[in-house]
Order: sequence, then C-alpha cells, then structure tokens
Amino acid sequence: MPSVNPPRGMRDLLPADKARRERVLATIRERYRAHGFDEIETPVMEDYVRLHAGIGGDNEKLSFSVLKRGLDAEAIAAAADDPARLADLGLRYDLTVPLARFYASHRAELPTVFRSIQIAPVWRAERPQKGRYRQFVQCDIDIIGDPSARAEAELLAATLDAVDALGLEGAVVRINDRRLLDWMLGHFGFSADERPGVLITIDKLDKIGVDGVVAELRERGVTPTAVDAFDAFLHRPQTLELRAFGEGSIRKALPEDAPDDVVADLVALGDAVGRARGIPAPYFTLPVQFDPFLVRGMGYYTGTIFELAHPSVDYSLGGGGRYDGMIGRFLGQDVPAVGFSIGFERIVDLLDAEADAAAEAIVLVHDRDLPPADLVSLKAALVAQGTRVRLEQRTKNLKALLERAAADGYTSFATVTAGQTAADLEVKPLS
Amino acid sequence: MPSVNPPRGMRDLLPADKARRERVLATIRERYRAHGFDEIETPVMEDYVRLHAGIGGDNEKLSFSVLKRGLDAEAIAAAADDPARLADLGLRYDLTVPLARFYASHRAELPTVFRSIQIAPVWRAERPQKGRYRQFVQCDIDIIGDPSARAEAELLAATLDAVDALGLEGAVVRINDRRLLDWMLGHFGFSADERPGVLITIDKLDKIGVDGVVAELRERGVTPTAVDAFDAFLHRPQTLELRAFGEGSIRKALPEDAPDDVVADLVALGDAVGRARGIPAPYFTLPVQFDPFLVRGMGYYTGTIFELAHPSVDYSLGGGGRYDGMIGRFLGQDVPAVGFSIGFERIVDLLDAEADAAAEAIVLVHDRDLPPADLVSLKAALVAQGTRVRLEQRTKNLKALLERAAADGYTSFATVTAGQTAADLEVKPLS
Repeated sequence: MPSVNPPRGMRDLLPADKARRERVLATIRERYRAHGFDEIETPVMEDYVRLHAGIGGDNEKLSFSVLKRGLDAEAIAAAADDPARLADLGLRYDLTVPLARFYASHRAELPTVFRSIQIAPVWRAERPQKGRYRQFVQCDIDIIGDPSARAEAELLAATLDAVDALGLEGAVVRINDRRLLDWMLGHFGFSADERPGVLITIDKLDKIGVDGVVAELRERGVTPTAVDAFDAFLHRPQTLELRAFGEGSIRKALPEDAPDDVVADLVALGDAVGRARGIPAPYFTLPVQFDPFLVRGMGYYTGTIFELAHPSVDYSLGGGGRYDGMIGRFLGQDVPAVGFSIGFERIVDLLDAEADAAAEAIVLVHDRDLPPADLVSLKAALVAQGTRVRLEQRTKNLKALLERAAADGYTSFATVTAGQTAADLEVKPLS
Repeated sequence: MPSVNPPRGMRDLLPADKARRERVLATIRERYRAHGFDEIETPVMEDYVRLHAGIGGDNEKLSFSVLKRGLDAEAIAAAADDPARLADLGLRYDLTVPLARFYASHRAELPTVFRSIQIAPVWRAERPQKGRYRQFVQCDIDIIGDPSARAEAELLAATLDAVDALGLEGAVVRINDRRLLDWMLGHFGFSADERPGVLITIDKLDKIGVDGVVAELRERGVTPTAVDAFDAFLHRPQTLELRAFGEGSIRKALPEDAPDDVVADLVALGDAVGRARGIPAPYFTLPVQFDPFLVRGMGYYTGTIFELAHPSVDYSLGGGGRYDGMIGRFLGQDVPAVGFSIGFERIVDLLDAEADAAAEAIVLVHDRDLPPADLVSLKAALVAQGTRVRLEQRTKNLKALLERAAADGYTSFATVTAGQTAADLEVKPLS
C-alpha cells in the first residue's frame, strides 16, 4: 500500500485547523452577504478545452487533468504525441474561468447587476514549498454587469469591511488603473510592443527596487530614451512617497498631463470608499493608497487593479481588478466585470489562533463499565441544555486526557458515576 | 468553445439553492458538534492505488482518475494495455477511504476515541439521471476507537438530533446486526459460501416482496431445504410486523434461540437511545426500529448496520454501520469504528424551500447618474446597522426588479435620491 500521507503538496486538516478556517470563512461570508453579494458554487471540474483557452495564463500549465473514461488501447496509442487527448475534463485552477462560464450559462436567472461570492478550493500542480499547496481555498467576490466606478466602490467597501471584521489591522488596498499604466508608458516613449515586457519588469519594483528596475529595462533593449525618461521620473523625491487618495496626491505621483477621465474615476473611487467608511477628505487615514506602479500579473485586466497589503508581510494578501473583456468571450457580447480575491490561505496563517468561541463544552469522564444508556442519556440531557459534550473513558493519565480536551476547546469536566443525573454532576473548570 | 453548461452530470448552484444547502449543512454541523464530534477535511484527491484497493466495492469502477503529469510519448504508448498507468491520483468516491487514511496518518494527534465529522463532495461517474449527480455532498460522522455499544448509541443520538433539527418528522432509523444475519442464515441451513448471494437477494425485500425473494433464492440454486425453512419463516404473520425496540419485539421477529449476546447488545442500544431521547420503555414511540432483514450493500460491515428511512420516500436517506476491520488495513492493527452517513442531497431535496432567515434586507433603487459616493456611503451606513443591502439601478420595469429581489430574500426597498441619508429613506415592504 502507498504511504498514509495525503498526496504530495496537499494537506489534511485536523479539527483545530478546520474549525479555525471555518470561523474565518464564516466571518468573510457574513460580511460579503451583508453587502448584497450572493454565494454560488460550480463543479470542481470544467471542460478541458475551456481550462486551456489562454485565459488562465501560466496557471493553465499547472492544472490537473482528468483521464477520459473508457479509453481503449487504440485511443491511448493515438494520444502518444498529444497527452491532451487523454483528458476531457480538468480541475479548476482559479474561480474566474468557472464564474465566466456560470454567468454565460445562467445570465437570464440572475439580477442585472450580479454580485457573486465564491469560496472554494482550486488546484495547481506547483512545486510544493512552505506555505504553498496544490489544493487551496480561494475567496472571490465579483460584480458583473456594472461598468461604473460604483462597482469598484462597492467591492472595496465590502473587502475592507471583511478585513476589519477579521481584525487585520493595518491592512491597506493599493490601487492603480491599467489605462493609466498604459498612458504613462506611452508618455515616456515606450512603444506599444514594448509595454507588456516593461510591465513585467515594473511589477518587480517592490523586490528589486528602482535601480534594479532601470537596470533590467536597459537589459531588455527597449527604447533607451524611454528608459532614461522613466529613470528620471522614478528618482523624483515625491515618486515613491506614501500616496493618500486625494486628487492632489494622485496627480503628484504621476507625470504631468495624466488623462483627466481616469484620474477623475480614481478620485471618485477614493471619495466613495472614504465616505463609505465615514472618513472625511482628504482621506489620509483611508486604508486605500494610490500606487502608480502596481501592475498585477494577469493579462485580462482592463481598468482598475487592486492589491491587499499588510505591513507584517512582504507578499500580497489578495487582489483583483476590472476585466471587462473576459465574460464576453464566453457570451459573445461585452459584459463589464470587476472582482477581488482574498488570499484566504495567507490570511488564515496571519491571524492569531484564537480559541473556539463556543458556548460551554464539557468532558464527561467515565469508567469503562458504566452502562451506555446511563452515559448517553446524561450526555443528551447536557446537549439539550446547549452544552457541547465529549465522553472520555478514564485512563491512567487523566491529566493528559484533560489537557488534550482543553486544547480541543473544552472548558470544563466532570466525573460520572452510575445513576448520576445532570443536576448531580460536580463540574470543574478545565485549566 | 465548448458549451457553457457544467460538465455532464454536474451542477451549478445558484444563490437560492446554495444558501438553502448551506443552511441545512450548518444545522447538521452544529448538532454534530454539540454531540462532541469534530470536523476534519482531507484533500479531494487520494493516491490511485489506495482508491483501487478493493474497499470501495462498485464505486471504485466509477471513480475519476487524474492524469499523471509530464507523461512522454513512450510512457503513454507503454500504458496502451493498462490505462491505470496513466493515473497516479484519483478523486475520492466516498469519505470512508480518506477517513481511514487520515486516521492512520494522524492517530497520535487525535483523542483516544475520535469522533469525526466530514461534510464534503465526492465524485462518481454514474450514468446521469434525475436526482443523481456525478459530484455530490456526503455528510458523515464516525466514531473510531470505541468497540462498545456506547459508540452506536452516541452515533444514533446525534443523528436523530440532527434529523429533528432539520424538521424531518417521521424519520426512522432501521437497525440490524450483520452477526445476527449471519447466524439466521446458518440457522435456516444456508452454507457459508451461499450466504453472500442470499444477502444480495434479501436486500431486495422492500422492492420485490417476500414471494419475490423466495423465487429469486430458488433460482439461485442454493440449498433447497434452507429456502423452504426461510420461506416458512417469512410467511409467519408476525415476521413483517412493525418492530419496536424492546427485547420481546426483537426476539419475536427472529427465529428461536437467537444468540443472546447480539440480542443483548441491540436491547442495550435501544435502551440507550430511548433514554437519550427521554422516552420510557417499551419504546413504542422511539424512531428506531429493529429490521432483521436490513442488509446494507457494502462488504466491510462487521456488526450493527443502520438505515435512515422516511415515510414520504421509498429510498433510504442515509445509513451506516460498524466496520471494525477497515481502519486496521491501513494501520496494521485492529481499530474499531462505526459510522453514519446522511444522504445530504436527498434530504435537501425533501426539505421545504424555506425563506432565508436573514435579518432585514433592503433594495436601494437609484437613478443611473447618482454619484457612487452617495450610494455606497448610504449602503455602508445601512450595512453597519445590520441590514443586508443590494443596490439596483432603476429600470423601466420596476415591478419585475422588485419581484426578483423579493424572490432572492429581500424584505424591503427604498428609492434613493441625491443627498439622502439613511434617516431620510422612505422604506417600503417588498410584497
């Protein structure tokens, strides 16, 4: 037989972990529902062709494929040069591709503006490493059908509310707009062909710094005068300052003559989020910052992009953006959409392991030969009173037994003898 | 591109369905936790070899296999005669095989008697048909490490409590014991070799009736005198009577001289469940019945077996039993175990579609050009008061818009104009 471990890169969740994860998910779900989002679910599998249509970027290569059923020797031999012919289904690698398919399939049954919640596992065959798993939970909200900045404002208000409810103090959403990035690169003189590569380099700014970015751009061999102009811009003292979300701050962080419409959208967004949180302008205390160098990897973003950051970690805790083109690819007509994905696995690791907030939980310690009916009826009486109950047969090491129960969230214990009722129990605190 | 439907035999869950399912699961989970069970989770995939070790019976043949990554032409060609070589993982077809692996892997971290909850999807490539899906949720509780009838009593008390909490009035658990079945078949004269086949036929009693069973046994060509004796027993007037759970009823339903130890275990179990529910002997009103012809399909049961029945449907709503041999196969030492699996998909179909028990939920109808900041801050103020809020841009058909919102669980609406605050809103009931 194979080992008793779970498959490579995947995890079993023990009771304490599972309970903590479910509590965090319940908080997120409850906040999102309050903001008018509705939870949906799709099957874990999608058609192989859909998962490999070029939308998922690098994740497509990491996806697990499901073997076609009923393959005969001839079919297998014919697939020798093309393993894709062995699979007709695959496990989803994100929740965006399934959402687009879901919306295309059920549009007539959904509200005109559809606000979805998806909380579900996805699978990627990444090289296993610390904190990165081949099965992990994503936690997405999306607004489909609203082209206005209202959608971004609702999305951010809901996300910040959820982040607050989790007690993640100090978290900040960085915001940028793909249209602004594209304009800025053109302004410096990068050609349209060069821009995708330049964005990949700018995306590393946090890791390799200003000088690293400039050096890598020079190595790329893109228009040298554009790199010079960008270099000078990056070295302005005000460029890398902390950016509050007023019009003055946004304009100060950008080259002159930034397009008015995009800046106005961002200002309106900051205004909406600020007012939603009851913070007066100029929003210095708003947990939202304008970041003109925020890029986000996925190619499908068309407007605003977001990333959730926290001072205690140097990786992002989530992100999203507007992707007005993608749903249309499934539906044959343009549909605006914007989404935010919380990095659930990273957030749950950050949060303190708080004890189960359950009501009273008691351990009933009993001798081996006590009749089942005595024990189970006593247990039922306590359960009916709203107490969580665990039966434990007495062992030589009672202390170890009680310590384990305390670690599992039990708050008290009592020793049971024959004929005892709930009223007779001598209940003692655990710990 | 492929169709926008989910894969064959699988479902998308729309908001109303998803919310209803989550409410039902929350009820079940809460009751099971109160009875001292703890939820765990395992990855959806298990090693291919483990899934095909003969434990899953017919379900093994229905399992989805996951394609090995990095197969080259040579490896594919070599697998032409043995498709199993193309897969190293598979999707689980039940929650029992993963539980056995989990327990073998984590035993040292778990309480001596481990009471587990698993609520999770499984996959079987069955021929799609009404009410049967290729991805569906199972909902299992198991007690591992307790060989006594106490475990059965706890399991049944928890299950009946969950069934009550769901409002499934009239549900009954039928109980039998594999040891009793084996003794009874020996008593009538069936040889040990004949008994597995005879059990398959007896399992059809509900469908084909007494005469059908006898006819099929004669066709099987098993010991004719045994069939004659069984025929006579089945035709006793008292054999198919409703069976309450006292010793007299149990003995009356069996041939004379039934083994005292098994009967005593069953009597003790009925006694424990009766007292746990506060019902005095002789338990005529106990929702537990002795059924000497209950068989249950799986080969791994070693003692008690259960099935949850409801008068409104002729199929089972769940079942389980004791399987003392299976965990030991993974661990290399015997470990007693007993489990009960609720048929979640069938139960959720039976329950009335009750409305979302949410607090107040309001629809804010607004004009297209109202500033996002006005709307989103108004929404945030209402959310902060504990109200669920959905924004809806006014359409020509306001009535249709409001009807949809009412169907989605919203209770009131208000029309928003510029500069309005939460206090100014004129809230009207929806419906």
